[in-house]
Order: sequence, then structure tokens, then C-alpha cells
Amino acid sequence: MKKVAVVLAGCGVYDGSEINEAVLTLLSLEQEGASYQCYAPDVEQMHVVNHLTGEVSEGESRNVLVEAARIARGEIKPLSTANAADYDALVVPGGFGAAKNLSDFAVKGAALTVQADLLKLAQAMRAANKPVGLICIAPTMSAAIFGEGVKCTIGHDAEVAAAITSMGAEHVDCGVEHSIVDSKNKLVTTPAYMLAGSVLEAYKGIHSCVKNVLAMA
Amino acid sequence: MKKVAVVLAGCGVYDGSEINEAVLTLLSLEQEGASYQCYAPDVEQMHVVNHLTGEVSEGESRNVLVEAARIARGEIKPLSTANAADYDALVVPGGFGAAKNLSDFAVKGAALTVQADLLKLAQAMRAANKPVGLICIAPTMSAAIFGEGVKCTIGHDAEVAAAITSMGAEHVDCGVEHSIVDSKNKLVTTPAYMLAGSVLEAYKGIHSCVKNVLAMA
Repeated sequence: MKKVAVVLAGCGVYDGSEINEAVLTLLSLEQEGASYQCYAPDVEQMHVVNHLTGEVSEGESRNVLVEAARIARGEIKPLSTANAADYDALVVPGGFGAAKNLSDFAVKGAALTVQADLLKLAQAMRAANKPVGLICIAPTMSAAIFGEGVKCTIGHDAEVAAAITSMGAEHVDCGVEHSIVDSKNKLVTTPAYMLAGSVLEAYKGIHSCVKNVLAMA
Repeated sequence: MKKVAVVLAGCGVYDGSEINEAVLTLLSLEQEGASYQCYAPDVEQMHVVNHLTGEVSEGESRNVLVEAARIARGEIKPLSTANAADYDALVVPGGFGAAKNLSDFAVKGAALTVQADLLKLAQAMRAANKPVGLICIAPTMSAAIFGEGVKCTIGHDAEVAAAITSMGAEHVDCGVEHSIVDSKNKLVTTPAYMLAGSVLEAYKGIHSCVKNVLAMA
């Protein structure tokens, strides 16, 4: 059975992992016969967003690992303890948390840096020729992880695609139900809620991404 | 297209809605061609549980509606505004929130009362001969909503089944991939994470529940 590390960024689309994307990733991994272990960085969230109003909840702080544990039903470990040697693949669901807690794309755009433990894990996977899946907004980290020329998608949002291109990656337009495979880098990306209008649409693209990741593992 | 009201209890298995169950309910509704609107009561949670440690987070408070909005990506309304006439069916996912915020089963056991807005909505659905689905621990509310003799399942946990029986409902043992239909009351129940060892197991039972609910709508 293939073992996959899944890196979460909190719990909720506006300040953490997009919840549907995270659950659909785990469902798809199980449907394709893989096992997984969830990880998240043990750091404070960039901020807390009230998901009813969309406003930042001033003065409130939450921990990324503690909140991500809600999705993982407590079965989650600090990202700093993840070892690429233990896994056949890595998958990172999206949500703004991927651009706020796993990188700083939401603040710095094309000048982004990737959270240190995630960068280390993802580059170790790459060095070991193991596949990586990045979902939704997470592919903005592609160039920082894989270097120039890496091929990825976030769907067809012109502004985000331009930022990806300016970082040296190649952006490929992609429909919500599909995923883009860079065979050389073993990177698979899918737009998910960059485009999805329903849980079902997100599910189809994420399932495609997971299937393509496992096929290279 | 059939319209379904989905009532959430927060966001996280230990103090809110079980996240996988909530997402898999929405996915299953879409897969079966139904639309939905999420609701949650606009009240404080019974408490906040740190899902990494399993301990109560002393001094912290969160609002059920605001946290449930994380699952619903902000597309959620106060449960007090739900009108049975607008929907063809009602589904309530589980998680401890169903026994802490939607009822007080976690504290009072067989002496439980159901949150007033949920009781009103569920009984209005019953009066209109529209189906209701209760998932995981939520079927502990069956007798309080439907009265004595109603047939339901929470899997085969002896203690919870005994509480259900003592409230006047009939408990029927059920495997995780199946659901129990009470045709007279139009109630469908499934064990989900009362038994599930994986997201996929929960998905199969919840999909069965949703399909059986929609078949009677």
C-alpha cells in the first residue's frame, strides 16, 4: 500500500485548508488504495477569519496544527517531524491557508517564500523522485519548490497565473475536473476551488490529481 | 431538483459537526442530483475542544454558526430562519456537536432535549411527510423528534443503543456501509463515525442514507 503525506494549513477556506478539498483528498487516496498521514506546521495562523462574515477576527489567534487536527480527527503530526523517506508521495490541499500559513503568497505574491518544513519535505520528495500533488492555490509554490520551467495550473485566473509565470514556472490552463501532470518533475496540480462551483466539481479534479500522483509513486 | 436543508453543529468531531461526515453529506447530495442549504444555530458551543490533545480548551468560546460556516464556505444561515416549506428533506450529520450543540445527549443521555429550532424544523418536516436523515450520533434525537416506536440505528454501540431504547425508539443494529429506513416516519439513519474506520467507510454509509432520504422526498 502506498503511503502519502498530506500537509494541511489549518481548518477553513479563508484562513486554513479548504475543508472540502482536504476531505476529498483523503477520500480519493483511500478510494485509490493508498494510506496517509496528515501533517501541519506547529505555528500560529497568519490570522483568524470569521467565515460567516468574511472579516478578520481581530485579537484572536489559532494554531495551524491544532486547527488542522479538526479535519484529521486528531490523527496529525507536526510538519517538522515529517520524513520524505517514510512516504511514496506528498499532497497539499488548498484554501487560503496554503497562501497564508504554508507560504506567504497572499501577502507577497510572486516574492513568496515557502514555509521551511514544507519546502524541505517537498524538495526531499523531489530529490527522491517521488511525486507531489498541489491543489487549488498551492501550485503557486511550484517554482519555489521545483525551480524554473516546472509546469503547473491554478485553472485560468489571469492574475495568479501571471504571478506563477513571473516566478519562472509554466502555467497551463486547466478545467476544474482535470489535473496537469509535469512528468519530469513528477508534479500534479488541479484548480479545485480556484474554479469549482460545487463539491462535486472539486471532487472530480482532486480525484484526478490523486490518481495521477499515485500512478507515479 | 430536490432541495435539502443540512443542519450543522460547528466544525470538528469533538465539539461540532464531524467534518468528513458533513462534507460527504454535501458530496452525496450533489452526486444524487439534489441542492442544499446549510444551517446552524446561532449559539455558543457547549465548549471548545483542542482536537490535537482531546482536552477542553478552558476559557475559549466559539459560536456554532460561525464555526459551521467554515465547512459551508460562508454559505450558511441561522437555523432559526429555516422553513420546512422551502425544503424536500432534512439531513443532520453527526459529530459530538450533534450531542452537545443540537441536543444535550452528551450531558443528559436519555433525558436529552433537542435544540428548539432543530426540533421545530424536524417536526415540521415530519408533519409535512418529508424525509429526515440523521447520521452517526444524531439518531439519539429520533424519539424526541418522532415519538415512540421510531426505528433508527447508531451502529451497534450497546450503551448508546440502550439509551435510544429507553427513550422509546427501536434500535436496529446496522453495518457502517448501510442505513436503516423507517418508512412510516420517513427517517433514515446510518452509523458513520460511530463505526467508521476510514473516510471511505463513512462515505458509503452516508451515501446510502442520502440516497434513501432522496428516494422518499
